[in-house]
Amino acid sequence: MSKLYTIAIDAMGGDNAPEEIVKGALIARDRYDNLQLDLYGDKGRILEIIGDSDQNRLTIINTTESIEMGEEPVKAVRRKKDSSMVVAANAVKDGKADALFSAGNTGALLASGIFIVGRIDGIQRPGLLTVMPSVDDPQRSWVFMDVGANAEVKAPYLVQFAVLGDFYATHVLKRPNPEVRLLNNGAEEDKGDKIHIEAHQLLKHVKELNFTGNIESRELLNGHADVVVADGFSGNAALKAIEGTALTMFAGLKNVLVHSGLKTKIGAALVKPALKKFASVLDYNNAGGAVIAGLKAPVVKTHGSAKAKAVANTIGQIKTILEVNLVADITKYVQENKDQFEVHVEEK
Amino acid sequence: MSKLYTIAIDAMGGDNAPEEIVKGALIARDRYDNLQLDLYGDKGRILEIIGDSDQNRLTIINTTESIEMGEEPVKAVRRKKDSSMVVAANAVKDGKADALFSAGNTGALLASGIFIVGRIDGIQRPGLLTVMPSVDDPQRSWVFMDVGANAEVKAPYLVQFAVLGDFYATHVLKRPNPEVRLLNNGAEEDKGDKIHIEAHQLLKHVKELNFTGNIESRELLNGHADVVVADGFSGNAALKAIEGTALTMFAGLKNVLVHSGLKTKIGAALVKPALKKFASVLDYNNAGGAVIAGLKAPVVKTHGSAKAKAVANTIGQIKTILEVNLVADITKYVQENKDQFEVHVEEK
Repeated sequence: MSKLYTIAIDAMGGDNAPEEIVKGALIARDRYDNLQLDLYGDKGRILEIIGDSDQNRLTIINTTESIEMGEEPVKAVRRKKDSSMVVAANAVKDGKADALFSAGNTGALLASGIFIVGRIDGIQRPGLLTVMPSVDDPQRSWVFMDVGANAEVKAPYLVQFAVLGDFYATHVLKRPNPEVRLLNNGAEEDKGDKIHIEAHQLLKHVKELNFTGNIESRELLNGHADVVVADGFSGNAALKAIEGTALTMFAGLKNVLVHSGLKTKIGAALVKPALKKFASVLDYNNAGGAVIAGLKAPVVKTHGSAKAKAVANTIGQIKTILEVNLVADITKYVQENKDQFEVHVEEK
Repeated sequence: MSKLYTIAIDAMGGDNAPEEIVKGALIARDRYDNLQLDLYGDKGRILEIIGDSDQNRLTIINTTESIEMGEEPVKAVRRKKDSSMVVAANAVKDGKADALFSAGNTGALLASGIFIVGRIDGIQRPGLLTVMPSVDDPQRSWVFMDVGANAEVKAPYLVQFAVLGDFYATHVLKRPNPEVRLLNNGAEEDKGDKIHIEAHQLLKHVKELNFTGNIESRELLNGHADVVVADGFSGNAALKAIEGTALTMFAGLKNVLVHSGLKTKIGAALVKPALKKFASVLDYNNAGGAVIAGLKAPVVKTHGSAKAKAVANTIGQIKTILEVNLVADITKYVQENKDQFEVHVEEK
């Protein structure tokens, strides 16, 4: 029998919790036969949702609190000791589970990840890593990191993000020799503020990385990189601008097609299947969640508004991360390259 | 007779210079009867393009050099004393022209603006201001500043950007009591790095501004603000992400519609006019150019790839800026509010 991985699931986090989280867990349990899913949350409500479904490879751990979306993250994690998220994070820390899933408060999950699960020895700043689509080449999804954990960075953190992103692209996306680029406001190496100019120079000298220079946010969807490294502030700005533009354009298109004359309406009906297929390329629900990369175990956040399907897909992503042994490989690399790695980290 | 405004035109800057620049100037000259257009550049080539057209309200000033798109901006401006851009900037400085137009090297135009035309007394950092569309509400275009002039900022600069943007929205876009927001990675006032947290507090206390809090880049196209203030680094990242996503999506859509079955092709033909209309909302050629706000005269940059139509539209934008007396009003405000203004500026 293949190894059984245990994923701790914060069943109470997210706009549609616990319903969609539990339903997603049921889908994932049925889809992946090597997962044990531990659901942390209100046992009564979870049992109601499970209903008559079998409870094979599911365990419910009752918790009495939950962290809400608007709460101040660090305070919430400190105070709500019996919240689904904190208890689930402690289970990972204590070795009772191999990974943590949540659709809840991102800041609280970051705090739980950093303070409870813990950073990999040698990693200064874990960051939020997400897999993005490429419109030109649907086969070339790419890793974007950091998309919001670190509003303030130093150049060496960007190098660590690059290494973490490179590992993800290589092992999880199975991309050989991934092309790494730095998000910056121009292609030339002297572009950007001091931190990005310095980071560019540092990145050029990490021999394990296939660093091919800066990338502007205009090019992000065009399949020009496998890993894009960003500070958490502008990475977040670019990510949300892409999401917002795509959503607004789809809504605007729909509006134009629906509120036009008969000719356009007929045309709209005819192109609908093609448009749907196109929209699915940009659908984040297919891509999975955002990984807090740099922690001692996979901690993965899916959209707060995620439905069961997205929850199941994100659990599938966690399964892959566990199967390829990503955390152990990163830990080993950081340890073995401590000198080389720390040169970059301590330089500033 | 109404006042005649003189605009100095860098006829040699841009991917399509001098052809499209000169053609655009001809359109603008015919469209606006209160403009005198001074064309700086290679007289022989400009005359060839003008051909048989009349030269009413056109003057050609021969220059022997031009600054290329890839050149290091500050060096180029210092060395190429007889370049079309530098000679045109000097004409503005010397009062021979009221404003400067260029489709050339943005960095060089920034340098020409700051070092030759000069900053308004009391303005620390001019910034790049651009007018953006709103998809939900086509009537609510909005001012975005800074979109790339200042990769490195301090909080008080962001307050200055807000004041400059507010003036533009009020006087040029005729927006009463414009709603000003700060681009940040969350809605709450404690979001962002130190600079954005501080800027948020400063902005709250400028009584002339209708500051309504942070905005995330996801909301930029949704008509939630009249002025969005950003540091030049993340503002640039958000702007280019929007542009890139829109372009990529239109290309992707086109690709999907063209390379599908007959049914989709027929549908595509039927929806084409509606799609074209929708695309025009997001077409930057209609919106005009980016203004270097904070200078002693309007200095406006249009896209390097601008065609005659976009050139003419941008000249029309400059005409409006001149007619509403924007620079004089800002200068007066900064002077009269020196104390209040300088508190913010010197705070850090």
